[in-house]
Amino acid sequence: MPKLWNESIDAHRAAVKDAALDATAALVAEHGLVALTMSQIAEKAGIGRATLYKYFPDVQAVLFAWHERQIATHLDQLAAAADPAAPAGVRLEAVLRTYAFIQHHSGRHGGELSVLLHHGDHVDRARKRLHDFIEQLIIEGAQSGDLRDDVPADELTGYCLHALTAAGTLIGPDAIHRLVAITLAGLRPQQPAPAEPDRS
Amino acid sequence: MPKLWNESIDAHRAAVKDAALDATAALVAEHGLVALTMSQIAEKAGIGRATLYKYFPDVQAVLFAWHERQIATHLDQLAAAADPAAPAGVRLEAVLRTYAFIQHHSGRHGGELSVLLHHGDHVDRARKRLHDFIEQLIIEGAQSGDLRDDVPADELTGYCLHALTAAGTLIGPDAIHRLVAITLAGLRPQQPAPAEPDRS
Repeated sequence: MPKLWNESIDAHRAAVKDAALDATAALVAEHGLVALTMSQIAEKAGIGRATLYKYFPDVQAVLFAWHERQIATHLDQLAAAADPAAPAGVRLEAVLRTYAFIQHHSGRHGGELSVLLHHGDHVDRARKRLHDFIEQLIIEGAQSGDLRDDVPADELTGYCLHALTAAGTLIGPDAIHRLVAITLAGLRPQQPAPAEPDRS
Repeated sequence: MPKLWNESIDAHRAAVKDAALDATAALVAEHGLVALTMSQIAEKAGIGRATLYKYFPDVQAVLFAWHERQIATHLDQLAAAADPAAPAGVRLEAVLRTYAFIQHHSGRHGGELSVLLHHGDHVDRARKRLHDFIEQLIIEGAQSGDLRDDVPADELTGYCLHALTAAGTLIGPDAIHRLVAITLAGLRPQQPAPAEPDRS
């Protein structure tokens, strides 16, 4: 088959998939996760049930794909949040603020979903990518002296990501900004730096 | 009926209930939540199935009761963690450390459980008690100048409780102590206190 033809088939497939995932998102936002059916998804997406089944074997598979797309989107947003030219501390702040707002918006259904889907490998992979991304910024921030270096960067990363999930319970952007500031305060070097610079 | 008789009936009932809850805990630790049945629980508790049904209508009810007992135990542990004579900052540190270790030990099954049971009113009530308990310590700490007062105590409490859930992913007590220290650092007054003591 000519290349162009393949490309347009790929594009068509991607569009159908996206329509199914958008429909799923809308249905979950409206009714919650519990009663979701393949028929509802197909109807909402404006495609036939048989077509939907060509792409996804069941509701669980649609939800996985949707979750995967969400996580990928979030990772892109985080990567875009930081000005690559800025110092690590500034980049980290921008990324953590974006992460807090994502947590805030994922809100209730995000919680439900992650609960149901946490067993998937793709979630573990995505979570590891997120963790690694933040950890790298923290390592750079510690090297530049903006952040503390008395605690392993891996642990600081876990602290950040958990602390910022509190954004899901907050109301209004001011509270979210305050949460980011508090969380960052935990990452700063402690005490007016004891005389000896301890890194060899 | 004589009072003594009532008391011994009450004690017997409490003992049967506790046996059922202990059995449930053991079964969940062994097999996870998924396949738990009333028969298994009764057998493990050493009581008849009919007896178990006198106390609990179904597995869900046993799990609720178990969760309620766990939360009550944890609240007691937290209340006991702080020396009432110590300054608020010291009490808060002791309480948060205890909370972090509880989160650490609740580990995996704690997570699964809370997911399944989060809809219960009793969990909301218990969570509110926990929140109020920590918030009160934070208010006192802010009043004494140990803790920051530029962010509402309610938000600082949410930050703490979420940050410390990271303990569930940590290995070893040292890492947990570090997590508590980082979390507390976020609560401390920021900057060398600007000249004017701003509280009227």
